[in-house]
Amino acid sequence: MDWISEDQIMIVGLGLMGGSYARALKRLGFHVSAIDKDPESIEYAEKSGIIDRGYTVPEPEAVGNADALIFALYPGVFREWIREYGNLLKPGARITDVTGVKKCIVYDIQDMLKDDVEFIASHPMAGREVYGVKNSTDKLFTDANYIVVPTEKNTQGAIEWCKGLGRLLGFRKVSVLSPEQHDEMIGFVSQLTHCIAVGLMTCSDNAHLVDYTGDSFRDLTRIARINDAMWSELFMLNREPLLEKMDSFISEMQLLRDMLSSGDTEALREKMRLSTERRALFDK
Amino acid sequence: MDWISEDQIMIVGLGLMGGSYARALKRLGFHVSAIDKDPESIEYAEKSGIIDRGYTVPEPEAVGNADALIFALYPGVFREWIREYGNLLKPGARITDVTGVKKCIVYDIQDMLKDDVEFIASHPMAGREVYGVKNSTDKLFTDANYIVVPTEKNTQGAIEWCKGLGRLLGFRKVSVLSPEQHDEMIGFVSQLTHCIAVGLMTCSDNAHLVDYTGDSFRDLTRIARINDAMWSELFMLNREPLLEKMDSFISEMQLLRDMLSSGDTEALREKMRLSTERRALFDK
Repeated sequence: MDWISEDQIMIVGLGLMGGSYARALKRLGFHVSAIDKDPESIEYAEKSGIIDRGYTVPEPEAVGNADALIFALYPGVFREWIREYGNLLKPGARITDVTGVKKCIVYDIQDMLKDDVEFIASHPMAGREVYGVKNSTDKLFTDANYIVVPTEKNTQGAIEWCKGLGRLLGFRKVSVLSPEQHDEMIGFVSQLTHCIAVGLMTCSDNAHLVDYTGDSFRDLTRIARINDAMWSELFMLNREPLLEKMDSFISEMQLLRDMLSSGDTEALREKMRLSTERRALFDK
Repeated sequence: MDWISEDQIMIVGLGLMGGSYARALKRLGFHVSAIDKDPESIEYAEKSGIIDRGYTVPEPEAVGNADALIFALYPGVFREWIREYGNLLKPGARITDVTGVKKCIVYDIQDMLKDDVEFIASHPMAGREVYGVKNSTDKLFTDANYIVVPTEKNTQGAIEWCKGLGRLLGFRKVSVLSPEQHDEMIGFVSQLTHCIAVGLMTCSDNAHLVDYTGDSFRDLTRIARINDAMWSELFMLNREPLLEKMDSFISEMQLLRDMLSSGDTEALREKMRLSTERRALFDK
């Protein structure tokens, strides 16, 4: 199965991310169905034309009809779904996901699936500080990065299919990482940054500062509006890499603090020059 | 002297900030002159109509003709300028600044000035990661905060005049803080955030992450492109408040780290909920 317009695609979990996938895939001409336990989300998505057909439970016929399924669920819920309904999947179906951690989930899901269904993991590096299908948008992926996360069990065909999905959705750059490399990377660029934003917001009472602050503080704390259920789960599932990144960042802050305390301006300037040089690489 | 269109305004230091003031004041119809030691900046600004008249040295006649002067210099250079040329200022002239630290400079400048000139300090909470008059823009102030920083030496007239300047320039909100309150505040919302951005950029080699990163990392490190000469000077001049803020942030990060390490999900979620609640106040 390659990407052909007759494909029946099912989104499992119709929130911000699932809804954004649905919108982008509908626009491309695919038949898109969705399952979400919240009837309001399904009703809204059907009425708005975000999906062709919606379900609040995994109807065997609907699930068995899908050529491709995209799971946009919390990691634990994703695992339970596969355990309970994996047998409904169509032989030859391909499934992928949007899960923010990989090592703890990808191998398990692959082991649980029957042999005629292939799970190729992926991670769209995109998000917003708002939730739900109503806030979804097919613009979410423009200029964002997409990571395909294969294991040794994956076929080259499925890897290429998943890369194709990233390109179809309009991601700026599609890359491939192992689950271990992915979790290392995500511990730094995503999880550590969320910890920092939260820590900056909670380290002192700052509500009175709103009339004085500039854009720096706003930028550093944009992601401090955080879904506590989802992110605490993601943090716990990637505990070792994240702890390592936090320790390395805390040490660096301590080092900068000591440079300031001892009045070592030249050492501080050297750090600032390194920072400036590295950050230039990240300009879009 | 109130704000009247016949006012002769002089900008001292025609970089990003001085240039942005010049553009905004010219648009409002004031006669704007500028001093900058760099002939290219002056030539560019004259040719582009950003200023009416430019000088590369403090010509006594030009300085003595200005009703109001805005100093957009590094703190140390500002102090030297007043020491050397303060006697050229017109009796009755008002001066203000854009300096990012206050306690260490405001009292000194006020003491150095002759009695017939009043310095009322202010701080426009706006900036960009690019430099020089060529990057200046009168849009810099829209939606930004402006802080007037009086001491006991300031007259109510000068305070009102300076607030008026903030409003004329188009700032969203004009506030008043003492030099000590200002430096406390700035240590947190501006200096600590810059330390964090630098620390995140320098704590590990991350150049290879550019193909994977999402917007979180980009947002948190936008200000990691940093003018090392200026910011190291600002940090050193506000060392005590900044050290206190850094210590409080480092402790909080250590606390979050320990919650993660001990698997205390509920404590982490509580921090995330507090963070979310506080951050909502900062939405524009």
